[in-house]
This record gives sequence, C-alpha cells and structure tokens, in this order.
Amino acid sequence: MEKNRVIIVMGSDSDLPVMKECAHALEEFNISYSINVCSAHRQPQKTASLTQEAEKNGAEVFIAGAGGAAHLPGVIASYTTLPVIGVPVRTSFYGGADSLYSIVQMPRGIPVATVAVNGAYNAGLLAVQLLSLADDSLKGKLKEYREKLSQGVEKKNELLQEKGIDEYLKEKEK
Amino acid sequence: MEKNRVIIVMGSDSDLPVMKECAHALEEFNISYSINVCSAHRQPQKTASLTQEAEKNGAEVFIAGAGGAAHLPGVIASYTTLPVIGVPVRTSFYGGADSLYSIVQMPRGIPVATVAVNGAYNAGLLAVQLLSLADDSLKGKLKEYREKLSQGVEKKNELLQEKGIDEYLKEKEK
Amino acid sequence: MEKNRVIIVMGSDSDLPVMKECAHALEEFNISYSINVCSAHRQPQKTASLTQEAEKNGAEVFIAGAGGAAHLPGVIASYTTLPVIGVPVRTSFYGGADSLYSIVQMPRGIPVATVAVNGAYNAGLLAVQLLSLADDSLKGKLKEYREKLSQGVEKKNELLQEKGIDEYLKEKEK
Amino acid sequence: MEKNRVIIVMGSDSDLPVMKECAHALEEFNISYSINVCSAHRQPQKTASLTQEAEKNGAEVFIAGAGGAAHLPGVIASYTTLPVIGVPVRTSFYGGADSLYSIVQMPRGIPVATVAVNGAYNAGLLAVQLLSLADDSLKGKLKEYREKLSQGVEKKNELLQEKGIDEYLKEKEK
Amino acid sequence: MEKNRVIIVMGSDSDLPVMKECAHALEEFNISYSINVCSAHRQPQKTASLTQEAEKNGAEVFIAGAGGAAHLPGVIASYTTLPVIGVPVRTSFYGGADSLYSIVQMPRGIPVATVAVNGAYNAGLLAVQLLSLADDSLKGKLKEYREKLSQGVEKKNELLQEKGIDEYLKEKEK
Amino acid sequence: MEKNRVIIVMGSDSDLPVMKECAHALEEFNISYSINVCSAHRQPQKTASLTQEAEKNGAEVFIAGAGGAAHLPGVIASYTTLPVIGVPVRTSFYGGADSLYSIVQMPRGIPVATVAVNGAYNAGLLAVQLLSLADDSLKGKLKEYREKLSQGVEKKNELLQEKGIDEYLKEKEK
Amino acid sequence: MEKNRVIIVMGSDSDLPVMKECAHALEEFNISYSINVCSAHRQPQKTASLTQEAEKNGAEVFIAGAGGAAHLPGVIASYTTLPVIGVPVRTSFYGGADSLYSIVQMPRGIPVATVAVNGAYNAGLLAVQLLSLADDSLKGKLKEYREKLSQGVEKKNELLQEKGIDEYLKEKEK
Amino acid sequence: MEKNRVIIVMGSDSDLPVMKECAHALEEFNISYSINVCSAHRQPQKTASLTQEAEKNGAEVFIAGAGGAAHLPGVIASYTTLPVIGVPVRTSFYGGADSLYSIVQMPRGIPVATVAVNGAYNAGLLAVQLLSLADDSLKGKLKEYREKLSQGVEKKNELLQEKGIDEYLKEKEK
Repeated sequence: MEKNRVIIVMGSDSDLPVMKECAHALEEFNISYSINVCSAHRQPQKTASLTQEAEKNGAEVFIAGAGGAAHLPGVIASYTTLPVIGVPVRTSFYGGADSLYSIVQMPRGIPVATVAVNGAYNAGLLAVQLLSLADDSLKGKLKEYREKLSQGVEKKNELLQEKGIDEYLKEKEK
Repeated sequence: MEKNRVIIVMGSDSDLPVMKECAHALEEFNISYSINVCSAHRQPQKTASLTQEAEKNGAEVFIAGAGGAAHLPGVIASYTTLPVIGVPVRTSFYGGADSLYSIVQMPRGIPVATVAVNGAYNAGLLAVQLLSLADDSLKGKLKEYREKLSQGVEKKNELLQEKGIDEYLKEKEK
Repeated sequence: MEKNRVIIVMGSDSDLPVMKECAHALEEFNISYSINVCSAHRQPQKTASLTQEAEKNGAEVFIAGAGGAAHLPGVIASYTTLPVIGVPVRTSFYGGADSLYSIVQMPRGIPVATVAVNGAYNAGLLAVQLLSLADDSLKGKLKEYREKLSQGVEKKNELLQEKGIDEYLKEKEK
Repeated sequence: MEKNRVIIVMGSDSDLPVMKECAHALEEFNISYSINVCSAHRQPQKTASLTQEAEKNGAEVFIAGAGGAAHLPGVIASYTTLPVIGVPVRTSFYGGADSLYSIVQMPRGIPVATVAVNGAYNAGLLAVQLLSLADDSLKGKLKEYREKLSQGVEKKNELLQEKGIDEYLKEKEK
Repeated sequence: MEKNRVIIVMGSDSDLPVMKECAHALEEFNISYSINVCSAHRQPQKTASLTQEAEKNGAEVFIAGAGGAAHLPGVIASYTTLPVIGVPVRTSFYGGADSLYSIVQMPRGIPVATVAVNGAYNAGLLAVQLLSLADDSLKGKLKEYREKLSQGVEKKNELLQEKGIDEYLKEKEK
Repeated sequence: MEKNRVIIVMGSDSDLPVMKECAHALEEFNISYSINVCSAHRQPQKTASLTQEAEKNGAEVFIAGAGGAAHLPGVIASYTTLPVIGVPVRTSFYGGADSLYSIVQMPRGIPVATVAVNGAYNAGLLAVQLLSLADDSLKGKLKEYREKLSQGVEKKNELLQEKGIDEYLKEKEK
Repeated sequence: MEKNRVIIVMGSDSDLPVMKECAHALEEFNISYSINVCSAHRQPQKTASLTQEAEKNGAEVFIAGAGGAAHLPGVIASYTTLPVIGVPVRTSFYGGADSLYSIVQMPRGIPVATVAVNGAYNAGLLAVQLLSLADDSLKGKLKEYREKLSQGVEKKNELLQEKGIDEYLKEKEK
Repeated sequence: MEKNRVIIVMGSDSDLPVMKECAHALEEFNISYSINVCSAHRQPQKTASLTQEAEKNGAEVFIAGAGGAAHLPGVIASYTTLPVIGVPVRTSFYGGADSLYSIVQMPRGIPVATVAVNGAYNAGLLAVQLLSLADDSLKGKLKEYREKLSQGVEKKNELLQEKGIDEYLKEKEK
C-alpha cells in the first residue's frame, strides 16, 4: 500500500455515495488518501490489519463511515492511537440515530471524533484541520477556504436582495 | 481454559451487577459457563482470541453485555458463527437506547440475538433454550420452569384476591 | 402439517416482502421451513394452536415478524419453550421503533431473540446458527458462508481500488 | 367468579401501586370490579380464559396495565369484543415509551383504548364514562365529579391569590 | 342538527383522508354519525358549542382526530363527560409522535381513549364496541366481524400455502 | 381583576415551583403581573373567560405553563390575539418531550412562543422583551441586565483562573 | 440598510422555500421587513454586525430559521435584547428534532421564542402580534384575520356537510 | 494569556464537574491547557475574542462543553480553523440528546469533533491524539496508555476469575 495521509474506510459500498464527499474535501486540499470498503463485522481481521498496516505506513488520520450498528469507527479506533473520525450514515431508523449513537457513545479511553449524520464532507475537512496542526501552508489554505465559504453565502444574499424571493427561487430551480 | 458451554462476556466490570443474572439463569439449569470482563475497544485482540479459543474448546453460545456504543456483542459475532446473544446495558442516555441500537441493528450476515435492556436473566434463559434443541432433558426442565413461572403469578393473584389491594401492598413492602 | 425445522410466521401478508428473506436464508442452507400468515390479535387461538402443534411435530425454531404493536413473537414465545426469533417490521412511526420495542422488551422468563428492524434475512441466518449447534455439517456451511461474505466485500474493495470512485459508482448504477 | 362490571388486570404485581388507582376511580362511582394479576406471557391460557369467562359472566369493560413489551391489553382485546382500556406502565426506558407504543399501536380490527403513561386513574374514569352510556344516574355523577374537579382547581387558585406564591408553597409542603 | 350517535370531528380538512375511515367503520355497523371540520384553535367557541349541543342532542361518543399540537380531542373532552376517542394523525415529525403525545398524555380527570397513529378505522370500531355495551345485536355483529377478520387472514394464509411466496406476491401486486 | 401587564397561568399548582420563576423575572423589571392556576381541561370556560377578560382589562402578554398533553398555552392562544408564551413543564416521559411537542407544534394561524422545558425564567424575560418594544426605559434595563449576566460569568471565570479547578469546586459546594 | 420593522434571517438559501412564508405573513399585515441569508457559522461577524446594525436602524423583531445544529436564532439573540423568534427547519433527522432542540433549549437569560418545525408562517404572525402591542390598528387587523381563519374552516365544514366525504375529497383534489 | 496548547471552554461553571475530566486527561500527558468559563450566549464577543486570541497565542486545539442548546462548540468553530472538540453535557431532557444534536449536527464547512455525552475525558484524550500527529514521543505515550488500559481490564478479569462473582462484587463495594 502506498503512503496515504488519510485512510477512508466504509463498511459497505452502499455508503460510497455519502463517503465520497470525504475524498472531495481532501482533494480540495491536495491531501493524499486511500478509500476502502472493509466491513468490521464481515472482515474483522482485515479491519485490524488494514488499520495497523496503514499506521505503520505513515497514515495520520482515519475516517470511517457506517450505518446501523455502526461499529467500524470504534473497531478501527481500538487498533490505533491515531485520530479516528466517524461518519454516521443515514438509515431509515430515526433518520440515522442508530448510526450516530453507535459511533459517538464510545467508552472512556477510546474516543471517536464524530461528525453529523451523513457529514462526510465535514469529516474530510476535519482531517485537513488535524493535519494543519503541523503544516502552516495548510492552515493558510483553511483560512482561504473559510473566507470563500463566507463569500459564497454573501453572494447568495446579494442575489436575494437584488432579485427578491420569487425570482431568486425561480433561478435556483433552473 | 476448561470447557464451558456458555461464555458470558462483558465490556466492563461495572456491567457485572446486571450480567450476573445470566449466570443465575444458567445455574438454575446446571449449564457450565465462564464469565469474563473483556473490552472490545480496549482489548480487541483479546476479544478475538477469547472468542476463537472458546469456540475451539467447545463453547456453544456466547452472551455479551455492553452499554453505550455497545460493540462487544457484534465484535464477538464477527469472530464466530456460534449464536451470540446481546444484552444492552442501561445507560442514562434515553434509558439505554444507545446500547440497544448498537447491538440490535447488525448488518446482513452477522446477526446478534438481542434481548431487552438489562435483560441479562432472559439472555441466560435464551441460551438454555438454544442448548435444549439437542437435549430433551433440558427441554423438560424448561417446561417445568415455565410451569413454575405461571404458578408464581397465580399464587400472587390468589393472595391479592384474599388480602385485597391495601393489605397485599403492605405485606409486600415488608 | 409436514415436519419443518423452522416455522416462519407473520401477522399480515403485508409483511411478506420483508419476511420472505427468512425463507431465502433458510433455503441457502437447505433447512426445511413453513411460512405462515397468522395474526396474534385476529387469530389468538390459531396462533396458540399453530405454535403448539408445530412444536409437537418437531419444529425447532420459530421466526415471527410483525409491525406496530408487534405482539406476535411474544405471543408465540408464551406458548413454547423453543427459541423464538423476532423480526421488527419497519413502520412509518420512528422508522419502526414501535415494532422494535414491542418485540425486544419482553419480561423476565419469556425471551425473544430480536434482530434488526427489517432484519428478516439475519433472522433466518440466526435460525441456522441455532440448528448448527447439533449439526457439524451446518457449522461447516456457516464457516463457508462467512468466508464468502468476507470475499464479497473484498472483491468490491478491489474493484473500487481498480476503478476509482466515479467509475465504480457508474458501473454499480447499471 | 362473582359478577363484576369492570375487570382490572395487570401483568405483574409490581404494577399494583400504579393500577390500584383504577380501583379508586371505580370505587368513587360505586362500580363493581375485580382486580387480577395475570401475565399474558407467563399465563397465556389463563389470560384467554379469564377474558372469556369474565365476558360470559357479564363483565362490561376490561382495563389492562403492563410495562415494557406490554402485550396484555392487546392479548385481552384479541379474546373479547368488549372495550379494552390499556394503561402503559412507566419503565426506565424512555420513561415508558416502550409500554405506550406496545399498547397503542394496535392493528386494524383490534383497538385498545389507551390512556397516558401511568394513567390508571383515568382508565378507571374512562370505564365509568363507558358504563354511563346506558346509565343516566352515572352520567349525573360524572357531571358532579367534573364540577368538583373544576372547583378544586378554583379553590387552589383562590388560595394562591390570597397567600401569594411563597406562602402558598410553604403551606403546600406541610 | 339531527341526532347522530357518533360525532366525528377533525381539526382540518387535510385530516379527512385519514378520518373518513371512522365513517367507514361506523357504516359497516349501521351507526348514525356526523362528520365535522372544526378547529380547536381557530374556532374554540364553535368547538365548545358543537360538543355541548351534540351531547344535548343525544350523541353518545365523540371521535376527534388531529395532528401536531393535537389539542382537539382534549378540548372536546373538557366540554363533555361522554367518552372521547382520539386519533393522532401522522405528521412528518417523528412519524406523528407529536400528535400521539398531545392526545394520550391527558391529565387526571379528563381521559381521552387514544388509538394508534392514523388509526381512524379502529377509532370507529372502538365507538361501536362502546355502543354495544347497551345493545346485544351490536355485540353479535362485532362477534361476526371478528370472525370474518380471522377468516380473512386464514384465507390469505391458505393462498400462500397453495401458491408459495413468489406467486403470491405477484398476484397481490396485480 | 386589577390591571396586570402580564398574565401567568398554569394548569396545576404542581407547576408552581417551576412557574414562579416567571414572576421573579417580571419583578426584576417591575412589571405588574397576575399568577393563576387555571386548568384548560378541568375549567375550559374559566380559561376562556380569564383570557378574554384579561385582554379587555389591558393585559399585554400571556405566559402559560403546562406538562404532559400541555394544551393550556394553545387554548389561551385560541381566545386572544395577544402574544402567548408557552413553558413546557418537565415530566418523567422523555424528560418533558410530551409537554414540548404539545406546546410548540401549533397549527398555522395560532402561534405559541415556546421556551425551553422548565424555562419559566426565560418566559418572564421574553415577556419583558416584548413589552420593551414600546418602552425605551425597559430597553435600557434589558441592556443592563444583559451586561450583568455577562459580568457574572466573567467573575466566575476570574475566580476559576485564580483558584484552579479543585479549590473552585470546593468553594462552590459550600 | 433601509428601516425594516422585522428582520428575517436564514442560515442557508436552502431554507428559503420554508422561510418565505414569514414574508407572506408580514405582507398580509403591511409590515416592512428585510430577508437575509446569513450563516451563524460561516459568517459569525456578519451575523453579529447584521444584528447590531438592524437594532440601531430601528428593527423591532428578528425571525431566524435554521436546520440541524440550528444556532442562528440563539446567536442573534446573543447580540440583541430585541425579541428573537426561532423557526426550526425540518431535516431528515427525526423530522427536525435536531433543529427544534438546538433552538428552543436556550439557557437562562437568552430566550428564543420558538415556533413549530417549519412554522415560518406562524413566526411571521407572531411578529405581527408583538408589534400590535403598541399599535391598535394592527390589533384590529389581527382580530379580523382570526375571524377569517375561523370562517375559512367553517366554510370547509359547510361544504363537507353539503357534499359528503367522497365528493368533497374529489373536488379538493382538482 | 500564557501559551497553552489546549483551550478548554465551558458555557457555565455548572459544567465544571464534567469538564474537569478534560484537564485530567491532558495532565496525564503533560499537555499545557487553560480552562475557561465563557458563555456563547451571554458573552458572544468574549467568546469570539477568546477564540481568536488563543489561536494567535499558539493554541492548537479547542475543547468546548455545553448542555441544552449547546452552541458553544459551534460558535468557537466559527471563529477558528483549528480543530474544535465538542462535549455534550448531560441534561435531564432525553439524557442529553439536546446537547448532542446541537453539537454534532454542524453544517457543511464547519465541523465539530463530537465525543460522547459527558465524554470530557475522551475529549482530552482526543486532543492528545491530535497533538501526537507531530510529536512521536506523545505517540509513544499514547501506546503505553492504551497498553495500561488493556492491562487494567485484564487485571479485573483475573480477579473475577479468582474470586467469583459474589466476592468480586463485595470487594468492589468497599
């Protein structure tokens, strides 16, 4: 396995449409990553070895997404002391509360840094924030990103002021 | 490790006051068991080896209890094809809903037979039911147990009819 | 009624699209089964007699699925000491939480082995696990099944590594 | 069994401190009743026969209280076409939501008239309302009861106006 | 207003597709009813007068359906001592939990007989059960209805036995 | 009834220990108020007349607190076009979620301004904010209040910096 | 910025289809307003300055809508002592419970007047009620509005009486 | 303000008994920290300046704890691109679900790394994991810590094997 700074893992390829957003965030900041389908329950030993080998190969952050009895982030965290970011994937049960509680309610000693339900993009961004701690150029890029984010909202607001509600909504639908 | 038919595991010794009820149920039916504290998150490899060795040594059923992001039953199930019974231990978060969802919402291919929140006694009893499939004398004992259960309620009812509500409650408090 | 090892029961034929997954799991392992529509509330006596006769005829495991005030698994459990597996069927109320709580929160003495909401396939698989306790060839098949499960995820992962995210998702949609 | 107009049933004598409030309400209106401990799960046949015999003996309304997978009201309703009032007994799981959903979410054809969690007094009162449909003197008593209820609140209000907040609370504590 | 035995009320005409099921149930048993749109919040005085006049005109049971902060059943109950049946109408908030709690959690002294979320048909049926207390011919009809209900499930079961799962589902879809 | 600017109403005197906080907030700002026990369900007509007379007498804001099927704020809102502030009082059911949903989920046309569960103090403060719209001296007092609030937290922070965690907690306990 | 009496703010333009209902309510009563997209998280300083400048320019009420970790109403409330009305925007997580709790559960000292999930129209109406405290002509218009609301329901009821259920529903669908 | 690597902030000193666990975790790893009471709602500008100055002074990670409408972590995250760890503090409302949802459900662009309800110790540990990314000696200490954690559970298990359930529980109580 080549060296990747961030290791994205998901329990099933049905999570890929959500979890690909992690990759998008990392690509915006030119962070190397691998993205893997690996099930904590169907491949417990593969999950262990993937985690331990990635750590040996210099990985710095794990991002794990799962739904339902979403054990993957916690299982990865049990095999590494690197930071693990957990993404609860939406289910039809309470809108993903099962995934959220299974990921966030970790016991003393083994934290998982949990983001919002389906918050895969933010998981990628959080990974960038962690990596920026030792990388001033990344810090700068994050400030620029934040600036653009703010301007993006501001532009929408200006358009709304100019067009009014109805025309704004019409243009948005196009 | 000596041969035990049922392997009881809990993630923390704080679960012991709940999980000891499994042992009580098994003792009522003279089923051999071991009871272990083993944390899926703090001891992932121990959890794997305990499961695999128990299976090799002839164990027949696992009972695992955990609270919060209660991964232990699912992690054990990922290392064995023997039946795994999960006991969600009560927490102060929604009365244990985090434990329940983390245990019951397992993905396709890896079931955990889940009982009620804090339902450790029933977990032991369910283990006896599983073992009775190949043991007619155990089946007979289960019928007797059920009979006694029914008589126990009936006796209470008779006492209530005899004493009336107020006196019944007074005697019960003693 | 011919001898069937597993008795699948559902409260309404609207549960059949979910519950047929039990049958699929059992067929994969060549386990004989019957599948029945029988309502605990509309046919209480039929539910009692179906349960008791099936037990007399040598049935070994019950699987019962129901939604809403999902009493069927508990009612069946009240008429037998054989293991009863409960499948909470999804409703539009909290995504099936009503079904789940009605099935899993059974009182002391009468356990129901509960699987995930709509987890009918896993219910079938759990039945196979129970039957394997007295059947080494079934144990072997379960190990093979688990192996295939693992390989299936691994193949998807290899394809993802080869194709990349976008192409993988395109092929999957086809 | 002597003739009782209302049959109160609870699944366990641990529900008696809640369910005795049904009896109090019925006594206020001089309605004959029996109060029984009878478990739907531990005594399914007793539950069936109690229900059917009570109906034959002229019972008019059933009140059933239960907690957790609270099947008792629904099981009684499956054996009679008389009105069944269900009392969800509080549990430590979501404050009794498991009891509530198990009782109220009954399928088409078999309603249970559900009252509030621990609402045993109101269950008794509702039974009186049902019986009043064919009993004008009971209707009159209900009007008087309602009048007193209203006056009771009014008296408290007058006391609060007279005493002020602090003194009112002090007197109440005594 | 002509004399109707059952008064169906809903807070908004958007509840009519649900609440019309009450009417269907009552028509099956030839019970006279009126069906009204009357909002507890937008027409508090109309709600009061509708309730009080209906009672004077000989109405026997109220059925009220509402969604969200579903006060209508409780408000009607505050103006009458006749039985009030509440139907929580489904919302997109927790699948109708807001409606359910607003209706079922009534205070001491003013019960509302609550049925399942969207359980309008059962509300109608429950009204019939109440009226049957003083009407033996209605009791007989309820027994016949229950019998048919049971036979309906049995017929489906027979068809399933005959056709098998796949063919049954195909025919059902037609 | 003398003229009071704010009318505090609660459904039961058991809500007084919570609702008296409204009075405290109003007293801090020298706003005249009355505080009343008046039950929407037990005294529907009193509730209507209290509301309508208070409005005639020059009341400006209503604050209503209730628990369970907490209809009081909505019922008051149905009788006035003055602003109504609702206080959901904590219950043991989901920590007061029944009260919250019953108050906040009001239908189109009849809003209730809802504050936090047990948020009676904030309800009083919100009333002051409403009254300040036409009263600049009140606006000034609110700015001062906010300033003090901020200073209060700052002082605690300074003490924590000075004392350190352990000593701070010891002093607080005294 | 011109003087507007009500300032509507939303965190994202995806909330506009919900929040435009505030504007509709205000237009019905000829109340001047501005409507702005401004994110508490992406533009914290803009949020602060928008709030403070609007207050200086004579704004009287804020209405803020947001979904998920819906901090916008609370953040605005932290920068002003004017009344802030919060609109929880529906999400797919528990139907918007995350938005609701984030808005309503404000700490002592900083209330947000919360309306129903997606209750933007009512938020506008509540703003009108606040403004009416110092404006008798607005009070009159609110009484007229309430009158029309009541008549609107009454007309629907009359149509239902005239047409019957089936025809009414057919005409409504057109 | 001296240079501290981790900035702990809580909205109220009532959170200190929970949040002091962050400090304990950091002290175990000799990480410098400051601990502050600063309310997002009562001191919005202080919150902004504390965050921005800490970042200028070389802080690397923020940990923020809050309960109810727990905006503090999100507000801090809006003022920095450094990682922010959020600790939902338990409330009596659903056991802290309000706090959890307010913290974890952050919008795209502004993540908060959320830990379990009351998971302050894990928040401290997660901060150490982040800092270890650029500090190999810290990585070593984390491995040792994890090792000790594992041994701690193992010792308890050995004691349980030696003593048996009853004696183990007796000794623990002492």
